[in-house]
Amino acid sequence: MAETDQALPPSDQLAAMNLTDTVEKHAFSDRVLIRSIVGRPDGGAGLAGERVRAGGWVKTGREQGKGTFAFLELNDGSCPANLQVIVDAGLAVLSKLVATGTCVVVDGILKVPPEGTRQKIELRVEKVVSVGEVDPAKYPIPKTKLTLEFLRDHLHLRARTNTIAAIARIRNALAFATHSFFQEHNFLYVHTPILTTSDCEGAGEMFQVTTLISESEKLEKELIKNPPPSEVDIEAARQVVSERGEAVKQLKAAKASKSEITASVAELNKAKENLSKLEERSKLKPGIPKKDGKIDYTQDFFARQAFLTVSGQLQVETYACAVSNVYTFGPTFRAEHSHTSRHLAEFWMVEPEIAFADLQDDMNCAEAYVKYMCNWLLDKCLDDMQFMAKSYDKGCIDRLRMVASIPFVRISYTEAVELLEEAVKGGKKFENEVKWGIDLASEHERYLTEVKFQKPVIVYNYPKGIKAFYMRLNDDLKTVAAMDVLVPKVGELIGGSQREERYEVIRERILEVGLPLEPYEWYLDLRRYGTVKHCGFGLGFERMILFATGIENIRDVIPFPRYPGRADL
Amino acid sequence: MAETDQALPPSDQLAAMNLTDTVEKHAFSDRVLIRSIVGRPDGGAGLAGERVRAGGWVKTGREQGKGTFAFLELNDGSCPANLQVIVDAGLAVLSKLVATGTCVVVDGILKVPPEGTRQKIELRVEKVVSVGEVDPAKYPIPKTKLTLEFLRDHLHLRARTNTIAAIARIRNALAFATHSFFQEHNFLYVHTPILTTSDCEGAGEMFQVTTLISESEKLEKELIKNPPPSEVDIEAARQVVSERGEAVKQLKAAKASKSEITASVAELNKAKENLSKLEERSKLKPGIPKKDGKIDYTQDFFARQAFLTVSGQLQVETYACAVSNVYTFGPTFRAEHSHTSRHLAEFWMVEPEIAFADLQDDMNCAEAYVKYMCNWLLDKCLDDMQFMAKSYDKGCIDRLRMVASIPFVRISYTEAVELLEEAVKGGKKFENEVKWGIDLASEHERYLTEVKFQKPVIVYNYPKGIKAFYMRLNDDLKTVAAMDVLVPKVGELIGGSQREERYEVIRERILEVGLPLEPYEWYLDLRRYGTVKHCGFGLGFERMILFATGIENIRDVIPFPRYPGRADL
Repeated sequence: MAETDQALPPSDQLAAMNLTDTVEKHAFSDRVLIRSIVGRPDGGAGLAGERVRAGGWVKTGREQGKGTFAFLELNDGSCPANLQVIVDAGLAVLSKLVATGTCVVVDGILKVPPEGTRQKIELRVEKVVSVGEVDPAKYPIPKTKLTLEFLRDHLHLRARTNTIAAIARIRNALAFATHSFFQEHNFLYVHTPILTTSDCEGAGEMFQVTTLISESEKLEKELIKNPPPSEVDIEAARQVVSERGEAVKQLKAAKASKSEITASVAELNKAKENLSKLEERSKLKPGIPKKDGKIDYTQDFFARQAFLTVSGQLQVETYACAVSNVYTFGPTFRAEHSHTSRHLAEFWMVEPEIAFADLQDDMNCAEAYVKYMCNWLLDKCLDDMQFMAKSYDKGCIDRLRMVASIPFVRISYTEAVELLEEAVKGGKKFENEVKWGIDLASEHERYLTEVKFQKPVIVYNYPKGIKAFYMRLNDDLKTVAAMDVLVPKVGELIGGSQREERYEVIRERILEVGLPLEPYEWYLDLRRYGTVKHCGFGLGFERMILFATGIENIRDVIPFPRYPGRADL
Repeated sequence: MAETDQALPPSDQLAAMNLTDTVEKHAFSDRVLIRSIVGRPDGGAGLAGERVRAGGWVKTGREQGKGTFAFLELNDGSCPANLQVIVDAGLAVLSKLVATGTCVVVDGILKVPPEGTRQKIELRVEKVVSVGEVDPAKYPIPKTKLTLEFLRDHLHLRARTNTIAAIARIRNALAFATHSFFQEHNFLYVHTPILTTSDCEGAGEMFQVTTLISESEKLEKELIKNPPPSEVDIEAARQVVSERGEAVKQLKAAKASKSEITASVAELNKAKENLSKLEERSKLKPGIPKKDGKIDYTQDFFARQAFLTVSGQLQVETYACAVSNVYTFGPTFRAEHSHTSRHLAEFWMVEPEIAFADLQDDMNCAEAYVKYMCNWLLDKCLDDMQFMAKSYDKGCIDRLRMVASIPFVRISYTEAVELLEEAVKGGKKFENEVKWGIDLASEHERYLTEVKFQKPVIVYNYPKGIKAFYMRLNDDLKTVAAMDVLVPKVGELIGGSQREERYEVIRERILEVGLPLEPYEWYLDLRRYGTVKHCGFGLGFERMILFATGIENIRDVIPFPRYPGRADL
């Protein structure tokens, strides 16, 4: 029976099955996305009879029926599921198709496989369009199960694994969820600068950006090719100037013709020019230019010292204080020598800034944003989340559901410290001492969100001594209007605050923490002229992915991780 | 009559007018967006009677009626239009409200203004909630009409001007349009690295990123505070070691007790440790660490030389060759000393990369993307576009309409050169000579798109000699499958190509252009293992904004422009 059905021409077959489904070709390619077949609720069954071109990389392949045909599990990265492809030996040399990593493009017809198979649909190949071969003996990532650590040494190929591809799709979804959330709420996306001459936190650990080294190396090479003039060369040039000067003098004394004198003066000027050029060149020294014993940054590209940004907050405030609701989403940098699983030298941050808003609004925005992302993943990435649950963290989907639905706990820092002290009294051991005034350590944060409340916790009103100068001083003069969002699995996910909008108060705070006023004059201007109540926060984008996926090491959730000693590609 | 109407309580008034409109409060603030009032198709008239809280900055203000009330034009950046606000003298000191740049938050009731005024609605203030004052004598950008050049010296305040705010909204719209377009077409957003150890074009002009300078400065300071040991110090320590050694020897010879010997050996070891510490410290030299006369980059943060990326293309190809359709959208950098109105040291680029696709697909994608952005602006930013048309470029809206609707002309490079040669024969003067093999100059590109065709033109199949090594060699062996999209007003907007996917061919091309193979081994791996036909392009995001708005200088369409000698904030 099945045989007979399959022998029908596709259009008849479709009519017979009363199907109107068709599969859409990709807009900018002549193939279809594998997701548009196997990602359907019916697993693709409704597409039986359709002729399609598919392309992808072989996950696993095997020759069967004594080499008369091959099964290929084909994946094109559009979803975690593969398309099962069957190729007859007459169409290609099967041994060249079956190696993991082989790229194949095939034309064929979609058919419902025989009863008892896992697949709802498979592709019977009619033509092998192209093959990108793999020598399995040399392929650096031959098997599907490799450690994440091993894959970090093969950044250029690791996106071909199920895990890294799933993370790429989840990362993409969270990025677009971020834009969608803020756009829906009328925030403007502002590109804050990567190159900066301001140090946001006043806390060092910045990468320097310069052209001084390459310029000095260029000069060094040039001076080797074309050495600077010696003292003798310069003396000789000086001699020429003095002779030419003498010649002019004599011509003038002899009342020579105007044209003779003009010619002679021209010669003199040429000699002078040559001398000054030589003198200029003799001053060229290899090495980085210095002035008064210090590096002369006036000769650097931006005529001053420049760094990679550690946060776009201060700059984006200039836009919040003009167009009200803004956010940044871009790379930020820390030159910290941390070798932990939670730090990167280059990472992405989302930083909204809201004018006419206070700390309550800030917490509301942070909570709504995190919930929105969780719902987005549950809605649009459930297949990838199921893969993560199966392979890495069986609780990850429940965690998303919980965070999406439960109101976040909100407690003051003082209450948080009391709860921690209670826990200590109850026998809980922390490595770091608990008392009012300390910066909460990761173990404290994890205790609050994972053990005490078992849900997200927002801690607010921190002691001013442990927070940045720009956070708004509360009326108690001891705490500032800061807030951190703590979530199970990663601890601190978000840090934010209401900003100090009072000119006199922030000026005092800058001096109090020992920073110079001059570099912050532009920031003070925002308070001098038309100041506005405003607040904002920063979310570490990679931390959100760790939270969502349950992956342990931050180096695995960014495509090209940068950390001390490593910046591959 | 109007008087009587206005005296009705708002709810009754609404009932009387049979209105069901209400104005939504901003989700994370207690005020409403001004756009949600004046941005409505009815200009806000339908909201008469609503009580709202509004906040914004005063564009212009004036006291009227002998100081009995003030008119304020209030703008919060949510749209180009202002909300007219009327404050009675009894509610505030009016002179403190009227200065341009003042921030005010007010509660009031929306009313239809008297006949004959431009506004459809105005806000009658009932309470002044807060004021951020401005001293007009000191405000750096007091008037509304300031040159764009002047504003570049006040980056932190310029978003408060109509022009820069409109550009910010247009830029935001184009950014979200970009994400929406690629997401709709199943592309994954991939964050390619900013810090890189690869040079994409092999063409230099990169910014170097280092911690060597700051580390050496730190060391220098440390050595001044705590000078390295002198030869005498070291000699003394050596002396101690030899004495302690002698003591151990004597104790052993004297067959002293085990505990005596152990104590003595411990003393010796301490002395040895001290000596080796001193010797280590004596080697510390101020300045950048060198080895064999060259800078020792093994001591730099990434243990090798690192740069800021000039393009994410090569890296994003690793994802295209795994998950098929990807794009980057991020900052890129060129350390060029160009002082033109078209170059920045830091600019944003959009770079899609499509697997299973060729040059035709690439052109289709580029054309669809540009059209999508034009339609998006016409759809969602018409008020801002009208402002740009009125103030800067009266043709800008027509240009968007034309590009959105007309198919792009597609001609080969060879045809383009023929057309330019014809033009020269017809009397057209170009500064740069026209002949097959030249890189088209901006004047040539502008002639084709602005004069010859007066619409967007895609030029494809360029001579291989003027294009990058990674572009696919055509069968004529003279040209490569490259394409540039030229548009009126800016010339080249997009550059792209099909990538060379054949291992032997690309290897040959790398050698042919004189590049070393070793740094490209990872890139060659993409061709060695499961190679795939693929293509992509780059769009200069700021150029798209120049094209859309008609603004002349690229420094005005990015929030924080970086160029030689300038990196403010």
